[in-house]
Amino acid sequence: MDVFDSLWPPDLAEDWDTVGLAVGDPDAEVRSILLALDPTDAVIAEAVVLGADLLFTHHPLLLRGVTSVSAGSLKGGAVHTLITNGIAQFNAHTNADSALGGVSDVLIALTGITESQPLVPHPDGSGRGIGRVGDLGDVSTVRDIARTLAERLPPTTTGVRIGGDPAAEVTRVAVCGGAGDSLFDAVRASGADVYITADLRHHPATEALDTANRGQARPQLIDVSHWASESVWLAAARDALDTAFADRGLSVALQSSAVNTDPWVERY
Amino acid sequence: MDVFDSLWPPDLAEDWDTVGLAVGDPDAEVRSILLALDPTDAVIAEAVVLGADLLFTHHPLLLRGVTSVSAGSLKGGAVHTLITNGIAQFNAHTNADSALGGVSDVLIALTGITESQPLVPHPDGSGRGIGRVGDLGDVSTVRDIARTLAERLPPTTTGVRIGGDPAAEVTRVAVCGGAGDSLFDAVRASGADVYITADLRHHPATEALDTANRGQARPQLIDVSHWASESVWLAAARDALDTAFADRGLSVALQSSAVNTDPWVERY
Amino acid sequence: MDVFDSLWPPDLAEDWDTVGLAVGDPDAEVRSILLALDPTDAVIAEAVVLGADLLFTHHPLLLRGVTSVSAGSLKGGAVHTLITNGIAQFNAHTNADSALGGVSDVLIALTGITESQPLVPHPDGSGRGIGRVGDLGDVSTVRDIARTLAERLPPTTTGVRIGGDPAAEVTRVAVCGGAGDSLFDAVRASGADVYITADLRHHPATEALDTANRGQARPQLIDVSHWASESVWLAAARDALDTAFADRGLSVALQSSAVNTDPWVERY
Amino acid sequence: MDVFDSLWPPDLAEDWDTVGLAVGDPDAEVRSILLALDPTDAVIAEAVVLGADLLFTHHPLLLRGVTSVSAGSLKGGAVHTLITNGIAQFNAHTNADSALGGVSDVLIALTGITESQPLVPHPDGSGRGIGRVGDLGDVSTVRDIARTLAERLPPTTTGVRIGGDPAAEVTRVAVCGGAGDSLFDAVRASGADVYITADLRHHPATEALDTANRGQARPQLIDVSHWASESVWLAAARDALDTAFADRGLSVALQSSAVNTDPWVERY
Amino acid sequence: MDVFDSLWPPDLAEDWDTVGLAVGDPDAEVRSILLALDPTDAVIAEAVVLGADLLFTHHPLLLRGVTSVSAGSLKGGAVHTLITNGIAQFNAHTNADSALGGVSDVLIALTGITESQPLVPHPDGSGRGIGRVGDLGDVSTVRDIARTLAERLPPTTTGVRIGGDPAAEVTRVAVCGGAGDSLFDAVRASGADVYITADLRHHPATEALDTANRGQARPQLIDVSHWASESVWLAAARDALDTAFADRGLSVALQSSAVNTDPWVERY
Amino acid sequence: MDVFDSLWPPDLAEDWDTVGLAVGDPDAEVRSILLALDPTDAVIAEAVVLGADLLFTHHPLLLRGVTSVSAGSLKGGAVHTLITNGIAQFNAHTNADSALGGVSDVLIALTGITESQPLVPHPDGSGRGIGRVGDLGDVSTVRDIARTLAERLPPTTTGVRIGGDPAAEVTRVAVCGGAGDSLFDAVRASGADVYITADLRHHPATEALDTANRGQARPQLIDVSHWASESVWLAAARDALDTAFADRGLSVALQSSAVNTDPWVERY
Repeated sequence: MDVFDSLWPPDLAEDWDTVGLAVGDPDAEVRSILLALDPTDAVIAEAVVLGADLLFTHHPLLLRGVTSVSAGSLKGGAVHTLITNGIAQFNAHTNADSALGGVSDVLIALTGITESQPLVPHPDGSGRGIGRVGDLGDVSTVRDIARTLAERLPPTTTGVRIGGDPAAEVTRVAVCGGAGDSLFDAVRASGADVYITADLRHHPATEALDTANRGQARPQLIDVSHWASESVWLAAARDALDTAFADRGLSVALQSSAVNTDPWVERY
Repeated sequence: MDVFDSLWPPDLAEDWDTVGLAVGDPDAEVRSILLALDPTDAVIAEAVVLGADLLFTHHPLLLRGVTSVSAGSLKGGAVHTLITNGIAQFNAHTNADSALGGVSDVLIALTGITESQPLVPHPDGSGRGIGRVGDLGDVSTVRDIARTLAERLPPTTTGVRIGGDPAAEVTRVAVCGGAGDSLFDAVRASGADVYITADLRHHPATEALDTANRGQARPQLIDVSHWASESVWLAAARDALDTAFADRGLSVALQSSAVNTDPWVERY
Repeated sequence: MDVFDSLWPPDLAEDWDTVGLAVGDPDAEVRSILLALDPTDAVIAEAVVLGADLLFTHHPLLLRGVTSVSAGSLKGGAVHTLITNGIAQFNAHTNADSALGGVSDVLIALTGITESQPLVPHPDGSGRGIGRVGDLGDVSTVRDIARTLAERLPPTTTGVRIGGDPAAEVTRVAVCGGAGDSLFDAVRASGADVYITADLRHHPATEALDTANRGQARPQLIDVSHWASESVWLAAARDALDTAFADRGLSVALQSSAVNTDPWVERY
Repeated sequence: MDVFDSLWPPDLAEDWDTVGLAVGDPDAEVRSILLALDPTDAVIAEAVVLGADLLFTHHPLLLRGVTSVSAGSLKGGAVHTLITNGIAQFNAHTNADSALGGVSDVLIALTGITESQPLVPHPDGSGRGIGRVGDLGDVSTVRDIARTLAERLPPTTTGVRIGGDPAAEVTRVAVCGGAGDSLFDAVRASGADVYITADLRHHPATEALDTANRGQARPQLIDVSHWASESVWLAAARDALDTAFADRGLSVALQSSAVNTDPWVERY
Repeated sequence: MDVFDSLWPPDLAEDWDTVGLAVGDPDAEVRSILLALDPTDAVIAEAVVLGADLLFTHHPLLLRGVTSVSAGSLKGGAVHTLITNGIAQFNAHTNADSALGGVSDVLIALTGITESQPLVPHPDGSGRGIGRVGDLGDVSTVRDIARTLAERLPPTTTGVRIGGDPAAEVTRVAVCGGAGDSLFDAVRASGADVYITADLRHHPATEALDTANRGQARPQLIDVSHWASESVWLAAARDALDTAFADRGLSVALQSSAVNTDPWVERY
Repeated sequence: MDVFDSLWPPDLAEDWDTVGLAVGDPDAEVRSILLALDPTDAVIAEAVVLGADLLFTHHPLLLRGVTSVSAGSLKGGAVHTLITNGIAQFNAHTNADSALGGVSDVLIALTGITESQPLVPHPDGSGRGIGRVGDLGDVSTVRDIARTLAERLPPTTTGVRIGGDPAAEVTRVAVCGGAGDSLFDAVRASGADVYITADLRHHPATEALDTANRGQARPQLIDVSHWASESVWLAAARDALDTAFADRGLSVALQSSAVNTDPWVERY
């Protein structure tokens, strides 16, 4: 736990969020961790098969409070499987989004940007915060960035989608891993030419494009798979955990989930 | 579950309440049930020792929603012990208070009253509802009723306490098992000479006594142990379950908890 | 206006919704109407070019209240263009979803189902309501239905996506035009084998699939373009308006927008 | 706009208020401004006749958010007339009340007081704030002050009314242009002998008078026309704008509305 | 009390209102009642001088809950004076507005209208409700009605004011005693040509006049003194009480307050 | 009043609390004060008999706002008796809990602890605050402390009750006079071995004991009479007032109420 909390301090999480240990004994020894984006049934089954002691995820298992963990409920069934198999469940969510080296840091790095600032800086002035914005070394286009992301993100059924003008020139890039539709004001204020995020729906996307066309013709939009946008972070998280465990002389086996939790499997 | 729900329909529960299956598989076979008032640690340990499949309680395990069932939390620790030992947990609370033959019905019967009406009738007009009020066959006194309760309730450290005039004559008796301080208006409207309930604190009790003294000198107060007032119902619930299982040709062993969950163990 | 209100009674709209005349004079004569899904800038520009008197849309222009219609704001700019060009703006939204022959009626008809019931019936018992559920004449599969929809809906960049098992057999189909993620409980209660809707995001979709897999392996999911799912209704609305105007001896020219307001233009 | 915002900074406005550009293009050139207290129909018609580019008012056009600007609604009709005639609409309300040289400053100057402090100072410590309080050079009476105001304010049907003792001596005067019934606590704390404001209703006025009579016999009350109390500020605002435009080398024609928007036209 | 409650049933009062006995002993004998509009200090002093047992008012003494009746507070001082002098205080407010023969009934009768309906009927279908609307026998004008009211109401400093067109013809008249600015929608729906009420402020009045001018040029406005509009009801209430006491064989002396609680004493 | 406010500053009171003068004239001379815990009817009758000018209590008379002080209501009846007999009523509640030398200070001193810190320090950093925690000179046991309290507190029907392990060793003691069930988190954080408070009900007590048993086996619980826990403070308050009056050269007679307002009079 101390290792997790030092990498992703729980007090960086948003007020509405749930982070930390959802299932398991905080004092139990952990020798084997499975890392995954979501605590879905397939992922939990994988943890059972692999004999993991702890399932580390990005998304929380119990975001909203429950008054029953009956095995007949979705969340309760997961709780039963985890406890019956002696598997703890821990997550780092908006605290991992906000931390240095966090979800948005890893996502913007796919575009080749290595120096960036938060879109919404944390009030503590530490340089941490939600989302990232930074400048490319050379001018590119929305289409070229979308192609680059399609190559570097894990493949998904939906792929990488462009909203607005694919040929628009891009110097400044904003990103938010996961669903970023609440950050449009910050993106516009940042001067970004393109905004890369996931799960954009019809209304926010069409209103953002009209707002862009009225003004300075930015940002164009790139929508990626929610799963893909955040799962790239898991490799980085695994490396960070590996180093942190080694630094403390702890021997913990880390494995990455082979389950793709993007819901879409075919398209026509 | 069907047996439970037919005896204590879940839709009789108050809006703020939590009833039903909190832990366990709704489709699992149940052969052995432990009945207790509270799902405290000692009671859960008893269920483990007795090899019960299901712990039936009056009070809910998870009254307020939880976003973690970490074994390091009070409620999460209970969830872990229950699941690890294959014990389901089910409760009937305000639905059992309200049902015919429910908590207040059993409590008022200790005074010898067999016919009673709800203090707050359920809007469905079925005669069910919260609390009970009824008339004694003969005039008694507050003191005599308190002595009778002290004999018939399981013994507790605090015993049975009288507020107001112990010598006051009593014909009409109101009761509410458990903490009944929200029902004073209904009790006064019912014309009861004495009100038997539990967990009365300083302010509601002193204000109720002054209100009584100003008006028609009723009700006097009898405060009993919360645990004692409701645990007498467990024997009745056990009988009702026994009959219901037999009627359905089910073989389910029922046991009553030997744990006294009244918190007070000594007094000076 | 009377024609609109007789086809799509405003009191069928949900409480949170905004329907009716947003811009223009309710007493002005209307000779030419442009029908479109969204009052976006491109659609309004089309109305100007076509010389329409009224822009009829499904989505509201001013869903949330505004305290300024400055031309410098997104919504205010639209108001200025409309008024300056003498174009009124009227919409039928959740009242058109709910009405007979409404958005979900038209969408389910694409699967060949001609008889259906609402997923959430309107309390007036009229058979109207949100969403639709009905039975196919023959057993099909999720994949075949997705292919059929891909043929019959207007083409979009994202196309038609399947979540869950594409080979699952389907007899019963539920649909909700537009974003239908709030209806999962009603869909499950309806016994539908597949649920066709739009704008499903990562979390609702993955939780719905796990819920399905735990239980009766239904519903599988088909996600279509929000724009496509509702724009098929516009042709039906145009026919209904044509008939209604003719019945009243009114000469009103109706045109359908050529603008595709789906935000996504390329994918990689 | 920059000129307006420098004279009456929008961040001085109260949270519940609406200020700034309600109608029109923020980038359009402005050559002719009509100044008025209220954007009523008669005032907007005057702006049309005068060929004004912008209607500057004290009171907001759209104080509460609207989901329609249909010409059939009160506010929507005004929006249509303004846009059709190419007239922008801008207002400075509680920010103008609070600013130095603002509404209450001008009102208290009618009594001859040139140095005053805010009744409720703005938290920024700048000396700005709501209402004003200051001392007369010589002792006067409530009646004499009321007579002076009746001479110096534009004439209205209701005139200047006295509540309390007309003969009471006055050294210290508090004022709040417009409806000031929320400031009685601040007025009492200020030590004012008389409080001049508008739109005082029966209950606040009678309670304020009883409170005064119980204590230190102050403040007495003077109630003036809401319109009159604020329209005297318009001349000052016109002068300030004239100077500000000249300082920037801008040629903008300023006119004052001839419409009296006080609702009362006769009395018996 | 029974007499009061039979004339003005307390359950007719609005939810936000306070009616009934505020000070005094409900079981005390009452021989002498002073009737007044407001329980102001001057009225309470009058009750003391007259030796009244009970002060009956229209407006409540304690509309908002108090946590202290210290004599140093406005309301607490009144409580002390009343109790020290053995005077009870009772009021009928919105229940008297709503009742047959209530405040608005008496006010509309001043215009010569004897048959009227409520503006906002009480949901019980009894014909009671807030405000009244009815038709004159002959066509009149706003000015003539204002003059009639000025003659028939007790004289006040402000008098009777007209908003809108004094020469407009009037057949249908709406009234609401006291502050009626929340009823404009009901007044417009009633088809009234003029609306007579009190305490109309600048914004509701100007918006109501513009709304009238846009549409069917009604209603024009007549604003009277809040005190005058309701004090005419006191004579009717006195007569009703006299009859009711006599019917029950009770000898209770009734007196009408000589205090004018209109706050305005001079105008310039 | 100044004396009261200097000893127990009203701004130390919690937001939800009511303190200060509830009845009486703030400017009246006070020669004789009765001190009691509660302003119950018996206490007020005692004040009348003793001819007290002012009744000083710990608990407020009007905690929640009242819209009537009719003698037929509980609180109104008290108001009438007090005013009729010329007795003022003043209270210091959570401000007296928080102050140095306040309720919890006096309570913890009964265990022999003379140096203590607040459980919840006041934000002003003054060392004041709610509850107290401190260390015994020697190790004791829960049972010995309970016995000591039983000797030093005034006798009550319920006595002093122990929850948890009576034989547990105690070095560190936390106390909160009156009902302290909201402070468990602060008590656990303080490291106290036992928590002494009043009015603990079934659920908070059983959950606190399970929480203790799970962790570091502390705190054990001691529940005393609400009345007893706070009435010991009255003697200290009387001494403090005596000194303060003497310091100011004021001659005020102080008396302590002989009424025990604990509601319980017999137990069986």
